[in-house]
Amino acid sequence: MKVCKFGGTSVATAEQIKKVVDIVKSDDSRKIIVVSAPGKRFAEDEKVTDLLITLANVALNNKNVEAALENVVTRYRLIGEELGLDSTIAQVIEDDLRNRLATKSNDESLFMDTMKAAGEDNNAKLIAAYFNHVGILAQYACPKKAGLLVNERPERVQALPEGYAQLENLKNAEGIVVFPGFFGYTKSGTLRTFNRGGSDITGSIVAAAVRADLYENFTDVDSVFAANPKVVENPAAIGKMTYREMRELSYAGFSVFHDEALMPAFLRSVPVCIKNTNNPEAPGTMIVSERDYSAQPVIGIATDNGFSTLFVEKYLMNQEIGFGRRLLQILEDEGISFEHTPSGIDNMSVIIRNEYLTEDNRLKIIKRIEEELHADDVHFRETDYSMIVLVGEGMRHATGLTARAATAIARTGSNIEMINQGSSEVSLVFGVDKKDEDKILRELYTEFFQKVKVLA
Amino acid sequence: MKVCKFGGTSVATAEQIKKVVDIVKSDDSRKIIVVSAPGKRFAEDEKVTDLLITLANVALNNKNVEAALENVVTRYRLIGEELGLDSTIAQVIEDDLRNRLATKSNDESLFMDTMKAAGEDNNAKLIAAYFNHVGILAQYACPKKAGLLVNERPERVQALPEGYAQLENLKNAEGIVVFPGFFGYTKSGTLRTFNRGGSDITGSIVAAAVRADLYENFTDVDSVFAANPKVVENPAAIGKMTYREMRELSYAGFSVFHDEALMPAFLRSVPVCIKNTNNPEAPGTMIVSERDYSAQPVIGIATDNGFSTLFVEKYLMNQEIGFGRRLLQILEDEGISFEHTPSGIDNMSVIIRNEYLTEDNRLKIIKRIEEELHADDVHFRETDYSMIVLVGEGMRHATGLTARAATAIARTGSNIEMINQGSSEVSLVFGVDKKDEDKILRELYTEFFQKVKVLA
Repeated sequence: MKVCKFGGTSVATAEQIKKVVDIVKSDDSRKIIVVSAPGKRFAEDEKVTDLLITLANVALNNKNVEAALENVVTRYRLIGEELGLDSTIAQVIEDDLRNRLATKSNDESLFMDTMKAAGEDNNAKLIAAYFNHVGILAQYACPKKAGLLVNERPERVQALPEGYAQLENLKNAEGIVVFPGFFGYTKSGTLRTFNRGGSDITGSIVAAAVRADLYENFTDVDSVFAANPKVVENPAAIGKMTYREMRELSYAGFSVFHDEALMPAFLRSVPVCIKNTNNPEAPGTMIVSERDYSAQPVIGIATDNGFSTLFVEKYLMNQEIGFGRRLLQILEDEGISFEHTPSGIDNMSVIIRNEYLTEDNRLKIIKRIEEELHADDVHFRETDYSMIVLVGEGMRHATGLTARAATAIARTGSNIEMINQGSSEVSLVFGVDKKDEDKILRELYTEFFQKVKVLA
Repeated sequence: MKVCKFGGTSVATAEQIKKVVDIVKSDDSRKIIVVSAPGKRFAEDEKVTDLLITLANVALNNKNVEAALENVVTRYRLIGEELGLDSTIAQVIEDDLRNRLATKSNDESLFMDTMKAAGEDNNAKLIAAYFNHVGILAQYACPKKAGLLVNERPERVQALPEGYAQLENLKNAEGIVVFPGFFGYTKSGTLRTFNRGGSDITGSIVAAAVRADLYENFTDVDSVFAANPKVVENPAAIGKMTYREMRELSYAGFSVFHDEALMPAFLRSVPVCIKNTNNPEAPGTMIVSERDYSAQPVIGIATDNGFSTLFVEKYLMNQEIGFGRRLLQILEDEGISFEHTPSGIDNMSVIIRNEYLTEDNRLKIIKRIEEELHADDVHFRETDYSMIVLVGEGMRHATGLTARAATAIARTGSNIEMINQGSSEVSLVFGVDKKDEDKILRELYTEFFQKVKVLA
């Protein structure tokens, strides 16, 4: 049995939803489908989720909600009409939204979650109705009844595996199950949305719970590419990669998949396939536990930027037990997480994402390090740093791979500002100046993928 | 004015001490000399310091001290006789040692410091006597009277710059000043010895206090070499290097100079020259604040071994603020200092000198990390790791240098287990398997120094 997830662009219009039905029809094992809210139909379009956020804010400001409400309902109504459904479904959705608006309380965060989740929830109802309309037995699954349990606030929302036993019953449902992505319920019945990669996570949880043979993640690309196609021309398609490789690439800026979304599938060894709704015949990218990496030690190169380096120097730092720990404590007090900490004898650098830094906390950090750690020098050195990450299961055992990468970077005339190698078995990280990022990516791509078409 | 320090082998015999006098005579600006205790005369010989430790232990065990005492006195007596001095000096030394033995108290550490310091202190008296014997006015300087102040116990012993004003008066002393290395006195009058590189530090402190034009450090090599001569055949001599370069090389296993010893001279910009007592005409190695590194970005390659890697893995570690800090706290609780901390998304490695690790604390650390940090995996990965450190002021700005180094390592067929680059501006660290250390050092030497004879 397969669980299929369809992203926002795959369910944005009647035409797209027809493709979804065709995809499901073409393979009897496609039993459970997880759907997003309708995404953008064209570049300047608004996603339904954004329309719902607007609606929620109007309500929170105690303004008249009718126009904003109508914007949302209209989107569903248009889709329903184009699919040939009668007006019942639009009425169901409008009633649902009015019910949600009525739950408005002082708890803005709770109310916002409830409103946002309406996007997926109602799209699942609409799509289930269309399946039935074209003669395919299908049912909408309510995540609360189905058992998609999440933890209580204020912790970061995560699924509770104790809900899996109940979710597993979806296997036995009659016909196709249409499951809304993006949210679950706490044991006490509170609706919570996933922070990032929401529908991907739902798909992964459901696939894990029913122990699917495959979790198909339908999106709008034929496959994952070995490098960013906006920088590298016609990059090689990745045929097969491991969870670890996908996770490292996602973390370092590959936008296909949010890294956390893989975990539920990974823990139950459910293979994942990334496929294209608009070209379902393309084989896509398989994500599996292991692969033979002898032919292709490196599977992809990711880049990410917007990093700063905090540099701290103190004579005989290396003899001062606890220095590094106290430095990290100061950052922690400011709620700052760090990426890497290269160190010298008398100095230590901490690489931090710029999103954690403000004018104020930079000054505060410097002051505290000077006063509490008696550092001889402390300042933010680079403030526009890029990370280039080579990822591949074969990296650790491929002698000379670092040399090849460093030599390729040298060919571009760029300096390597930082290297982090030695903990992860599947990645090698270079810190470089942002201005050199694209040319380095192209040169590394040429070095490792020049003759490769598909990475299997 | 120059301050000259003569190490143990330079003052081990009458013949050596004659060379010292010749060196001082040959240059009028050589005004203050700092001396070590007599070192080994031949490979199997015992240093006087070791004889003194034996003597102290005999005393602490309440055994008869006469034989052990005679061993020490004899060494000085032989030197004195060969130098043509009368027996007065041997008697002075014997009386001094008996006075020290009489200070035995319950404080073993204090007593041990007092006994060990006798090696340098009495050698300074003997050498001063010999200067006068050959018609050169000279005086022994007592560190207590001269003002070599150190901090109180139990802190690690360090000189207090507030003693400098008094030490500066040595400039005005008549004739040559012979100053014993290795120890100083706290304000309350307690004798404390320097932990490591003792006489080098004394020389550096005195040179700084009198603002010498040059601090000459006489030892038994013509110069500092670019690599270990036991591994690399005829390595290039370093003509000039910076304090930072010397410090990085010293830290990473270069035994010429203890890294801490440079600091006092460095802080007052006193240049240092490492010279050979047995070949004083050789230009030696100058250590200065700055050098032109355009011709030779890398100045030396050091190796050090005996490291282990603690590997810790936890899913979503990167989102857990404080994880790294808590990991380092556990090591700190065990009194363990660390070298480097490469990190991946879900993992972090800590590289630790094996001398800090025992069977017991390894198990305890693993247990605590599992229990307190809920790590998914924690174990000691490599336990026989070497560090290879390329050092040079030009490193940071030499594009392609990392590539050259990594390519050289690849030529040996060895894997690079770890790289640390990005904090220190003058070093690049490779972690490799111990078994590959020598061949990598040779190959890196060939890459960076093949055509170089003297590095100036």
